[in-house]
Amino acid sequence: MILAADNLQIFNPVVAKALEERDPRPLQELARRCKEAGAAMLDINPGFLSKRHQERMAFMVDAVQDGVDLPLILDSPDAGVLAKGLAVCRGKPILNALTLEPKKLKEILPLAAAHQTDLVLLLLDERSFPAPTLEGKIALAVELRERALAAGLSPEQLIFDPVMPNLSWPDAWEQVRECIKAVRLLAGGAVFPEPARTMAGLSNLRSHLRRVYPLEVETTCLAMLAGAGLSIALADVLQPGFKEGSKLIQELS
Amino acid sequence: MILAADNLQIFNPVVAKALEERDPRPLQELARRCKEAGAAMLDINPGFLSKRHQERMAFMVDAVQDGVDLPLILDSPDAGVLAKGLAVCRGKPILNALTLEPKKLKEILPLAAAHQTDLVLLLLDERSFPAPTLEGKIALAVELRERALAAGLSPEQLIFDPVMPNLSWPDAWEQVRECIKAVRLLAGGAVFPEPARTMAGLSNLRSHLRRVYPLEVETTCLAMLAGAGLSIALADVLQPGFKEGSKLIQELS
Repeated sequence: MILAADNLQIFNPVVAKALEERDPRPLQELARRCKEAGAAMLDINPGFLSKRHQERMAFMVDAVQDGVDLPLILDSPDAGVLAKGLAVCRGKPILNALTLEPKKLKEILPLAAAHQTDLVLLLLDERSFPAPTLEGKIALAVELRERALAAGLSPEQLIFDPVMPNLSWPDAWEQVRECIKAVRLLAGGAVFPEPARTMAGLSNLRSHLRRVYPLEVETTCLAMLAGAGLSIALADVLQPGFKEGSKLIQELS
Repeated sequence: MILAADNLQIFNPVVAKALEERDPRPLQELARRCKEAGAAMLDINPGFLSKRHQERMAFMVDAVQDGVDLPLILDSPDAGVLAKGLAVCRGKPILNALTLEPKKLKEILPLAAAHQTDLVLLLLDERSFPAPTLEGKIALAVELRERALAAGLSPEQLIFDPVMPNLSWPDAWEQVRECIKAVRLLAGGAVFPEPARTMAGLSNLRSHLRRVYPLEVETTCLAMLAGAGLSIALADVLQPGFKEGSKLIQELS
C-alpha cells in the first residue's frame, strides 16, 4: 500500500491563497512536506465550479511538478478540469474519477481512454449515490469496469474506490465495514479474473468531525484497509500524529 | 472476527497457583473476566510436559465450564492432553493444533476425526518450523488440509493459523507481513474452493518484549489481520488497554 496526499486541494487555506495570488512556492513547499511525511503520490484538487478551475488545475500541476517528482492524481468531477491538468502533466497521471453519472461516462471516460491513463472508478451510481450494501458496491464495480473496458482501457488501468462515508451519516460504521469488505473482495481477486487495484479516501471519515473522533479512528480504518489489500490510501498526511500513526501500517503492507 | 482469550494458560501465575492448589474458583473468575473483556472463546492451555498435564487439562475444562458458557479451544501439542479435555468438555471444542510433525499427524488428527471437532492447522512443517515465505505457508496449508480431509474432516472444520512470529526473530516484520497476506489469501477464497477460517495468536509478537514494543504494535497487527478477513484472534484480552484498543476493530470486522 502506498499513501497519496490529499493536501493539495482547494479547501486547504494555503492552497486557496496560493491560487489567489498565483504563487507556486507555497504549493511546492506543501508538496515537499507531503513527500517527507510519506506520500508517494499527490492528489491535485483545484475545485470545479467555474472555468477558472481549469486554469487552476494547470497552475497547480505545473507548480507541484517543479517542486517534487511524485506521480500525480488529477482530481475533479469535471472532464474539462482534468483535461487541462493532463495537458501540462509531464508524467502520466491517474484521473480521479469516473462514476456511473451519464456526464462522466460521456466526458471523463473518453478522456482517460484517449490518453490511456489509469482511472479511478468511484463506486457511485448514475445519481452519484453510493450503494448501501456490499452486493450493491460490487455490482457498481462490475458495471464501471465493463464501461471502462468497452471504452478501451485495460483492467490494469482501473483503480476501484469504495467511497468511505462521513461518520455523521446514519449508517456510517456499517458503510465502513462494507468498504473494507469490498476492498478485500476486489483486491483478493474474488470478483474479477485479476486482483484489482483499489483506493480509499480516509479524510471524508472525520471531515468536520475531528473534534468528535480521534485520529485513531482514521488509522484503525487505514490498518484494516491495508490488511484487506488496499493499493492506495488517500489521506491528509500532514495532520498531527498521522505520520507516526501510519508508519507501522505502511511497513506491514 | 471474534476474540479468543489466551489467558487460561500455565504461564499465567494465577492459573499455575490454581492448578497447584486444585482450586477452580480463580480459573472461573479469570474466565469471567475474559468474557467481560470481549472474549467469545477461551483457549485452555495447561502445559504438556508430563502425565500431570492431562489431569490439569481436565481440571481446567471442568472449572471453566462451571464459570462461563463460552466455547473452548483445547490447546496442547499432546494428543493425550487434548483427549482428556475432550472427555470432559460439554460442548464440542476446537482442538489446537495439528502441524506436519509425524507424531501429531498420527495422534492428534485421528482424535479430531473420531470426535469430529474443529481443528486448528498450524502452518508448521514436519520439524515444527514455520515456512519463511508466503508460498511456503500456502504450501503447508495445502498439505495440512489434504491430510485433514483424508482423515475424515470436512473443509468447514479446519482453521488455519499462519503462526505469528516473536518480534525478536531476525526476520520478524517480514514474517508478520507474510502472515497477514496468508490470512488474506486463505480467508478470501484464493487458495481453496471455499473461503477458509483462520486464526492468529497475537501474544507471541511481544512475548518477553512488552517493554520494547507498545501495545499499539499488537492492535495494529490485529486491525490488519481483521481487515484481511481473520476469523479468530487469540490474544491476552486482559492486558491494560487491550479492550479499548481492540473495540473499534471488532466493530468494523
